[in-house]
Amino acid sequence: MKIGLVGLGKMGRNLALNMHDNKFDVVVYNRNSEKTKEFIEKGIEGAFTYKELIDKLDDKRKIVWIMVPSGHAVDTVISQIKPFLRKGDLVIDGGNSKYTDTIKRGKMLKTDGIHYMDVGTSGGTNGARNGACMMIGGEKSDYEELKTMFEAVCVTDGQMYLGKNGSGHFVKMIHNGVEYGMMQAIAEGFEILEASDFELDNYDVSKVWSNGSIIESYLMSTANKAFSKNKKLEGIVDEIDSSGEGLWTVEEALKLKLPSYVITASLMKRFESKQNERFSNKVVAALRNEFGGHKIYKK
Amino acid sequence: MKIGLVGLGKMGRNLALNMHDNKFDVVVYNRNSEKTKEFIEKGIEGAFTYKELIDKLDDKRKIVWIMVPSGHAVDTVISQIKPFLRKGDLVIDGGNSKYTDTIKRGKMLKTDGIHYMDVGTSGGTNGARNGACMMIGGEKSDYEELKTMFEAVCVTDGQMYLGKNGSGHFVKMIHNGVEYGMMQAIAEGFEILEASDFELDNYDVSKVWSNGSIIESYLMSTANKAFSKNKKLEGIVDEIDSSGEGLWTVEEALKLKLPSYVITASLMKRFESKQNERFSNKVVAALRNEFGGHKIYKK
Repeated sequence: MKIGLVGLGKMGRNLALNMHDNKFDVVVYNRNSEKTKEFIEKGIEGAFTYKELIDKLDDKRKIVWIMVPSGHAVDTVISQIKPFLRKGDLVIDGGNSKYTDTIKRGKMLKTDGIHYMDVGTSGGTNGARNGACMMIGGEKSDYEELKTMFEAVCVTDGQMYLGKNGSGHFVKMIHNGVEYGMMQAIAEGFEILEASDFELDNYDVSKVWSNGSIIESYLMSTANKAFSKNKKLEGIVDEIDSSGEGLWTVEEALKLKLPSYVITASLMKRFESKQNERFSNKVVAALRNEFGGHKIYKK
Repeated sequence: MKIGLVGLGKMGRNLALNMHDNKFDVVVYNRNSEKTKEFIEKGIEGAFTYKELIDKLDDKRKIVWIMVPSGHAVDTVISQIKPFLRKGDLVIDGGNSKYTDTIKRGKMLKTDGIHYMDVGTSGGTNGARNGACMMIGGEKSDYEELKTMFEAVCVTDGQMYLGKNGSGHFVKMIHNGVEYGMMQAIAEGFEILEASDFELDNYDVSKVWSNGSIIESYLMSTANKAFSKNKKLEGIVDEIDSSGEGLWTVEEALKLKLPSYVITASLMKRFESKQNERFSNKVVAALRNEFGGHKIYKK
């Protein structure tokens, strides 16, 4: 089995190295050819055009693994590799694509007989390098063909076939929604600890919580790692980006009319963290002032 | 070192066995003597009165570990053992006491020179039996004296001295608040999965999420265990009790004026789960009907 890997970003480069370590043939391609050259220097096969990439794959069946940012980039790669693909070939999207896009792309490729597989990848960059977690959607027969590879690049029991196209990315999306909520719960706990009269050490607390407690988790160990470097998180701005999957999870909850309070609140906290001035707060302050003469703070 | 353990409930009995396995002398006492008899049959020393319990401990220093439900039961035990204790003895509360009660009890015992220690214990019944997580508050010298015992009954790095009286129970309280939020985040994720058009298997999803993912955790493994027995959670009523620590965490957040959205929402979800009829919903339905003629559902 030989895999053409498109995209040598944080996740893609680690996954390519992981595949290579596990004796799977991999040919890498990156839009910026510098990274491809680095890989060639490491003894990993590289390609500088999509044609070259596809040519270097097995004649019997071309397998291309796309690891690029979700959205437009995925469509661009697909449209550029498609001319070189034939019926029966397989395209895998290992990124964080929106599952509805995945279903559309799968249908579009199917009209040419090209198979599509969605692999939601968790475990971060370290996981991609040393043992990931993969949520897999697509045709069962394609999964069976690639199973040994999934098993090799993931931790034990860290890969699962979940069903038809889209289910891998759907489950990864919900995974990220749950992640938002879990992180916010942890964060609120430390905020209370930090404000309390007890002189607690965030490193100590996150350490004991990481060993044998009910809230023991990868995220708590990660908190412990962060506090080991910076107990008070000094110099870190209280602003959080979000990359889409939390929003999509909330959109899904709204579509299904489900009251996902915690995941929604976690997303809203991120949105609020990006506001310079909270107009809603000004409105409430103004109303209180109008009806009750309550104090407003002026610049 | 010999420890008098009061309370052979789910946690106490497992902790006593854990101490015994680790070659620490333990004398057990339980209000209901049947359980004490069971322990004596196992070859563990038992006592049927508080006087007998204290008599059987080391003359040099009496150490009594209380493992009873929080609140009144703790005060009752303390008032009943106190007459037999002398200056310098040590009482440990290993239960889920409210930290403010712990501070009061510590001060009260201090007037007689009796030392007090609070040990917030996590890891559930299995942890108590095979390796717990303990958050410890009290005098540092008392902790140092008992450190080998804490190390023996906890998992590696699963015990931590956190500071003065109350800090152990305070950190355990926040631990439980975080636990509420993490559980609610996980629960909302599975609720969306369950309602989606994908035919997902909760056991499979919780399994792959438990291996190498960012949301890998004791709680996710526990979800996997629950789904392994009952994939659709059939027969389980959608009602959740709460034992106090979530509420106290929210009260603490309110006291400190901190916006703990996620922990608060998790607690409110539990409260709502206990409502037979949600009067607030009736109010909104009635208002919509009054001002807009919108439909109301009638019994």
